[in-house]
Amino acid sequence: MVANSWQPDPDRCFSPVTEVRELARDIYGRISDLRIVSPHGHVDPGLLADPDARFGNPAELLIIPDHYVFRMLYSQGVSLDSLGVTRLDNQPVETDGRKIWQLFADHIHLFRGTPSGLWLSTVLSEVFGISERLTGSNADRIYDRLSEQLASPDFSPRSLFERFNIEVLATTDSATASLEHHQKLNEAGLRVIPTFRPDRLFDFSSPDWPATVERLSELTGLHIGDLTGFVSAISRRRKQFRDLGATATDHSRMVTEIRSLPAPLAGSLFGKAMRGGLSDSEVNQLHAHMLFEMARLSCEDGMTMQLHLGSYRNHNRSLTEAFGPDTGSDIPVQVDWTRGLAALLSAFGNEPNLKLILFTLDEASYGRELAPLAGHYPSVRIGPPWWFFDSVKGIERYLDQTVETAGFYNLAGFNDDTRAFASIPARHDVWRRVTSNWLAGEVRRGLLEENDAHEVARWLAIDAARSAYSLAAQP
Amino acid sequence: MVANSWQPDPDRCFSPVTEVRELARDIYGRISDLRIVSPHGHVDPGLLADPDARFGNPAELLIIPDHYVFRMLYSQGVSLDSLGVTRLDNQPVETDGRKIWQLFADHIHLFRGTPSGLWLSTVLSEVFGISERLTGSNADRIYDRLSEQLASPDFSPRSLFERFNIEVLATTDSATASLEHHQKLNEAGLRVIPTFRPDRLFDFSSPDWPATVERLSELTGLHIGDLTGFVSAISRRRKQFRDLGATATDHSRMVTEIRSLPAPLAGSLFGKAMRGGLSDSEVNQLHAHMLFEMARLSCEDGMTMQLHLGSYRNHNRSLTEAFGPDTGSDIPVQVDWTRGLAALLSAFGNEPNLKLILFTLDEASYGRELAPLAGHYPSVRIGPPWWFFDSVKGIERYLDQTVETAGFYNLAGFNDDTRAFASIPARHDVWRRVTSNWLAGEVRRGLLEENDAHEVARWLAIDAARSAYSLAAQP
Amino acid sequence: MVANSWQPDPDRCFSPVTEVRELARDIYGRISDLRIVSPHGHVDPGLLADPDARFGNPAELLIIPDHYVFRMLYSQGVSLDSLGVTRLDNQPVETDGRKIWQLFADHIHLFRGTPSGLWLSTVLSEVFGISERLTGSNADRIYDRLSEQLASPDFSPRSLFERFNIEVLATTDSATASLEHHQKLNEAGLRVIPTFRPDRLFDFSSPDWPATVERLSELTGLHIGDLTGFVSAISRRRKQFRDLGATATDHSRMVTEIRSLPAPLAGSLFGKAMRGGLSDSEVNQLHAHMLFEMARLSCEDGMTMQLHLGSYRNHNRSLTEAFGPDTGSDIPVQVDWTRGLAALLSAFGNEPNLKLILFTLDEASYGRELAPLAGHYPSVRIGPPWWFFDSVKGIERYLDQTVETAGFYNLAGFNDDTRAFASIPARHDVWRRVTSNWLAGEVRRGLLEENDAHEVARWLAIDAARSAYSLAAQP
Repeated sequence: MVANSWQPDPDRCFSPVTEVRELARDIYGRISDLRIVSPHGHVDPGLLADPDARFGNPAELLIIPDHYVFRMLYSQGVSLDSLGVTRLDNQPVETDGRKIWQLFADHIHLFRGTPSGLWLSTVLSEVFGISERLTGSNADRIYDRLSEQLASPDFSPRSLFERFNIEVLATTDSATASLEHHQKLNEAGLRVIPTFRPDRLFDFSSPDWPATVERLSELTGLHIGDLTGFVSAISRRRKQFRDLGATATDHSRMVTEIRSLPAPLAGSLFGKAMRGGLSDSEVNQLHAHMLFEMARLSCEDGMTMQLHLGSYRNHNRSLTEAFGPDTGSDIPVQVDWTRGLAALLSAFGNEPNLKLILFTLDEASYGRELAPLAGHYPSVRIGPPWWFFDSVKGIERYLDQTVETAGFYNLAGFNDDTRAFASIPARHDVWRRVTSNWLAGEVRRGLLEENDAHEVARWLAIDAARSAYSLAAQP
Repeated sequence: MVANSWQPDPDRCFSPVTEVRELARDIYGRISDLRIVSPHGHVDPGLLADPDARFGNPAELLIIPDHYVFRMLYSQGVSLDSLGVTRLDNQPVETDGRKIWQLFADHIHLFRGTPSGLWLSTVLSEVFGISERLTGSNADRIYDRLSEQLASPDFSPRSLFERFNIEVLATTDSATASLEHHQKLNEAGLRVIPTFRPDRLFDFSSPDWPATVERLSELTGLHIGDLTGFVSAISRRRKQFRDLGATATDHSRMVTEIRSLPAPLAGSLFGKAMRGGLSDSEVNQLHAHMLFEMARLSCEDGMTMQLHLGSYRNHNRSLTEAFGPDTGSDIPVQVDWTRGLAALLSAFGNEPNLKLILFTLDEASYGRELAPLAGHYPSVRIGPPWWFFDSVKGIERYLDQTVETAGFYNLAGFNDDTRAFASIPARHDVWRRVTSNWLAGEVRRGLLEENDAHEVARWLAIDAARSAYSLAAQP
Repeated sequence: MVANSWQPDPDRCFSPVTEVRELARDIYGRISDLRIVSPHGHVDPGLLADPDARFGNPAELLIIPDHYVFRMLYSQGVSLDSLGVTRLDNQPVETDGRKIWQLFADHIHLFRGTPSGLWLSTVLSEVFGISERLTGSNADRIYDRLSEQLASPDFSPRSLFERFNIEVLATTDSATASLEHHQKLNEAGLRVIPTFRPDRLFDFSSPDWPATVERLSELTGLHIGDLTGFVSAISRRRKQFRDLGATATDHSRMVTEIRSLPAPLAGSLFGKAMRGGLSDSEVNQLHAHMLFEMARLSCEDGMTMQLHLGSYRNHNRSLTEAFGPDTGSDIPVQVDWTRGLAALLSAFGNEPNLKLILFTLDEASYGRELAPLAGHYPSVRIGPPWWFFDSVKGIERYLDQTVETAGFYNLAGFNDDTRAFASIPARHDVWRRVTSNWLAGEVRRGLLEENDAHEVARWLAIDAARSAYSLAAQP
């Protein structure tokens, strides 16, 4: 332990302008301890289902599973093998957590100015009580300290779940996931709920598609012989998710175009899909049609529909061939929400029972498309800054570009969207700090009443998410 | 009346940084009382033509006609019927102004942080002397107070026109509008001038198009048998508008592509239009050609040409079927000004007699396209932030993204663009405040001389608009 | 000389917030005198190759060659003829430098708030010791003062090169440029190096293309009969550039699409190009293929590859016909880096030997595309704000939108990109000031350690450019 102990700036994220900073501190102070509502993320439910689960070593906790972290190291010439990322060909990769940790610490300067750097320092300080900045020279000592803690029951996933004061945590689950972990969690009374993500069911050209459909049929006990049967099975599967607490679905796609096909055409394309041999364009049309159907089902069953559109998945083909998907090369593309959703919103956008949350990776669409859509259609809410934009400046740009047109009440609150469980409080904390500071700026510019700012801060911290995902507050 | 009287912050819109705020106050103080030049908007000329006209009740003044206001309420589940918006099918809607006002006041929190909220509080305070913030509980009392004032001659449109210190107000008028109100206004010596908007003349696939052309023929006394006759009639109609003071035309379209067709093709498409049966693509081509012709006429007759491009009109088809257009669902799309205007600007962009004002709803195009175009072509000026972007942050982004490339002198000054007459001073006031504050920031960063800032503030407040629209200052 | 002497604000570009400004001053103070590394620009090497060269009169130095300056004057109705810009038809244009200077000074208000205005005042003050602001009334006196200095050996290009403390200056040179000046510079020991720009070699539809290929053949001594020969000759020509110190290539194009063709198709298109008669689409395909080949060669020979994409060149066709290219009407278009470079980056983006620097004129692509690409691919670095965006706010937006995702170490440092030699220090100075101020803001918001800020400032000022362009520091 060093003499001069270090901790993150208690005023981090706040304005350098005294009058704003002081008010930001006040606003933040009243919401910083609110429970965490985490309605969208990628935590492995197995971690929490087993009371005896542990996170493994520090590299297994903080580096290997976090593509935000290893993509940055990779961008500066550090190989994924040396970081312990599993290869598809099962060639050996580094397995010594201490070596991986050292390599990370030697490159810690790469994270200056990044949200990953901010989260990491917060996690080390606030979750693990480390009072030094990580460097190449103290990496070993910190590794020991972390390892020791991670081995103790106080740092088990279940313990941290309690300590983090999480009111509810939603995971993201394939439509054909077994949900066994959620079953256990449900029985244990932990509010960890699944989210219905049917992307693979709509990946009509994948070699795995027939098996996925077969699995859906087994899980629902319904025969799937045609499109009608397919939709019925999906509808039943959605019910099975809801029975375990799910309140939302999630959908990912590169392009924004969603439109229905005439029933006979849709049916005939589905038949062709079952026989194999859809063209790319047909796959695309049928996928668009199915998303339209999902909105229709949401109008019926009330599940909030999340659209995460505009990501070019696995851009780095050679790396994907070696290491598989989700290895840091999903890259945004521009999107056209206005034209893309025109048919969908004309059909369902006025439905009182639909909540449709739109997530974008194209910030130019915040003010141009999402805020005008959300400021008009009753069903539309704007998802929080996603992925790269879940950052101090990303959140500020989001508020700058959406609030004036959509107001605060068409925003969907915060999502941490993470598989890095330990960073959940740090991520919510950044959101709470930045929104508090932004609101303080509005007050100090005479654009918002101070009382209102406190109310809005609370809305953004917790109530907006509850509302958007129909999650009742827990006592 | 409450004990603690409330008014909008006198320093609203200014920076929280003391040195900037103080200078902003000084700059603003020298321009805040300048007369209002309003070269583009949608006020009903009938309101001003009749000295005895009144605004009606508070809901009729501030809510029912303002799609900025009712779209926000609608987005949070308030029906348009309950807000008194007329249905196309003439089914009954709410007609009790007091109930509508109460409903609005009950949802006033939706307008936190929005320009509508800012304008409203300014109007209530500065036009009507209300010294409370509107809430659900004082709605009734404020309604009474407003109603009383609105019934008095001091709050007639004519009286407010005087009180608002409006130097000139341009309305926006269909090419085939009767202009009877402008005739009266002209005779009465009020400087309320029309703007020539021929959109319907170019809506070649509308069932109303033949009647519109017929009407143009009557109004001009010219037979319209072919494209040449059509253009001649338009040219004469422009003259009739100019005779009543018009200095500008206005054009709206979703896409930016404007190019001329070879004369025989254009003529033949026009002939086909007259017989009925243009394809969508032909309608589009002929529309593009006509806009090219409008630029040519502007070079001849000196009318400033305004292009409001990039809006997807009536996005919510089901709502439009029930309530008609202009009910809050016009949504921006991305635009390509660079390629779209290449032919037009190569042909006319160097003409000394042409003033072409470009308005965008795609802020990404400010710096990328509009500022480089305006910073090169003698004819091009950048219209002020339009619609959703006529807001504190919208104006700041506009200045941030245009000035460095285009300078201050290729900007077109401010447009309030409103049909909400009572809010005109509030809108100009926000523009004057935000520009003053922005200029103060430049001075305090050592990027602009203080003397220059005062000059530029005046330019932006009044002279830029006079220049862009060829409106001579009135004594 | 006036009594009240004037100079640019010593704190220009810094924040008006005291705590930030003071730290910015400190950070800047430690890097302001670092040598200048200028790895990309358009200085005429002939100016420096001849020790006796002079800049000519003030208009020849500061106005006539600077399209940033004359485009702004042109946009406000000042003809290019009157500014001395040469016409293609050799019609006479203004040649009296004093008159041109007066005209410029009479319009100096157009440059308020622009980077050109900021650079000019810095050049006049710091290079020429002028202690008045240029106005229409002192233009004559300042012209005399400048002329006197420009005639003296102390203000020769060579003298200024020394005085500016330039460590290395890269010019941009056609692939078939003679390089005679660089030969002399190399012999004289001045570190002025060429950059290989083969755009004209890939302009397959130009009437000059056959002559350009013929010239390449002569310069390399290689017969060019087919595509293989063409690539071999280019490879050898790259070597000849490297022999004179070149470390980089540069490529310009409107669209981002780069992909290779199957060898037989590429070969056959090249054959068709040699015979004449490629279609526009074929020209485009072959150009895309050649850029792919250039990346392949860069992997082999280690030359840094610069892509300046997204400019619509010579948008003003009528002006280009009269005055030629580079007369101020190159206008940005939106770009799609993600899809455009997918094939290229999947092929070469993981190569340790490739450095690929991406320059954009579409700021919306900073955060959406460039930062995610650079934060993943080892080969990619983000070029500094280009052209219109090389400005105070442009640099701030660049940092705001790239750093959180890409970090500081995937940025390529600064390029002045100028042909205006005298403004080189002013441009680097603005970059150093703005980056220092931005870093100070991060520190004061608790997002960056103060020590780290000093390190990063130095990286951005000089080391990032050395690294991106493989330019060893000079003793």
